[in-house]
Amino acid sequence: MKEKSKRQTDPALAQARRDQVLCAAADCFRRKGYHGAGMAEISKTAGMSAGHIYNFFASKEAIIESIIEQDMEKVFSIFQEYEDQPGDLVTILLDGLDYAVDHHTDVNQGALDLEMFAEAARNDKVAEQLRKSDCYAREKMRNLLLSERSLIKDLSATELESRIEVMFAMINGITLRKTLNPHVDKATLLLALRPAMRVLLVPF
Amino acid sequence: MKEKSKRQTDPALAQARRDQVLCAAADCFRRKGYHGAGMAEISKTAGMSAGHIYNFFASKEAIIESIIEQDMEKVFSIFQEYEDQPGDLVTILLDGLDYAVDHHTDVNQGALDLEMFAEAARNDKVAEQLRKSDCYAREKMRNLLLSERSLIKDLSATELESRIEVMFAMINGITLRKTLNPHVDKATLLLALRPAMRVLLVPF
Repeated sequence: MKEKSKRQTDPALAQARRDQVLCAAADCFRRKGYHGAGMAEISKTAGMSAGHIYNFFASKEAIIESIIEQDMEKVFSIFQEYEDQPGDLVTILLDGLDYAVDHHTDVNQGALDLEMFAEAARNDKVAEQLRKSDCYAREKMRNLLLSERSLIKDLSATELESRIEVMFAMINGITLRKTLNPHVDKATLLLALRPAMRVLLVPF
Repeated sequence: MKEKSKRQTDPALAQARRDQVLCAAADCFRRKGYHGAGMAEISKTAGMSAGHIYNFFASKEAIIESIIEQDMEKVFSIFQEYEDQPGDLVTILLDGLDYAVDHHTDVNQGALDLEMFAEAARNDKVAEQLRKSDCYAREKMRNLLLSERSLIKDLSATELESRIEVMFAMINGITLRKTLNPHVDKATLLLALRPAMRVLLVPF
């Protein structure tokens, strides 16, 4: 009883346990696919009983939802940094490519992202979560590009939407490139990525 | 006996049957995932016995191999068109974006591509096939960009590699954009895609 009540009242421990499940689940989804990874497999990988996992997550869908939420928080903190950073917006966003390439060429992150994208084509709930997260990222980018220090703040809504789509296509596409051409390195990618991104941040 | 020998000697009929299997398998892979779609499911969807399917394909891997080969043939014919078309290469490649956006925003094609990408992270044979096909596409693009009528034929090998990677990231990335933002339309995408692609086809 004492142990149980301790678990329930210690938020740091609960968070650590939640993270342990999310980590194990991500690993299982990568290896077996979302479809192929059951709660039994996740529980085995996490080294926790399935019953214990259900204390934190009602279902496999709740787990993937949390994984996507974690990604959304990362996106939030990146955009917050861009907003807070003083100076030229084009430079800030081009410097941000460095992190973006690291993130999107990470093999583990890539495998999980690709699994979630594939699952989205079959699973409306996963698709909805990913779309919510993407919608939020687009909104953040739109706000940055409409701010006073943006060189393209006077674009029409459609022109701005198009640019954000192509920027995101380029960045998201890097995950696919790493799958198709694992030999490509960051420095080589950045050589052409910067000028291609720059053209989207200034008036044509 | 008569029926069987007819099947074996009529190449058009054999090709039609092969296509029927490939079509059914693509449908199953999209719906169930490559992992989740068994030969029984493919045979049911194709309306052919599993035994009959094994006349054409030794395994599920042989099927996905054929699907990737079909894609490679499409890529071959597109690059052949670019090569044969007289006129300004930049214009030819920018006009080609029209077809590329259609292809990469096709929901069925996208779902199958994403499934193959996700499977590639788990299945070395699928990864190898996709990489072979991508390597071939890069080679074709490299040859075009090194040809006499290219404005960037004097770039270093690394600079050229970087540009091709970013072009392909942008185009491949459109498949992900359609998943994440299904409302985006072709005309909007092309607004910024053309200028971003153009900058990669001329000296910086």
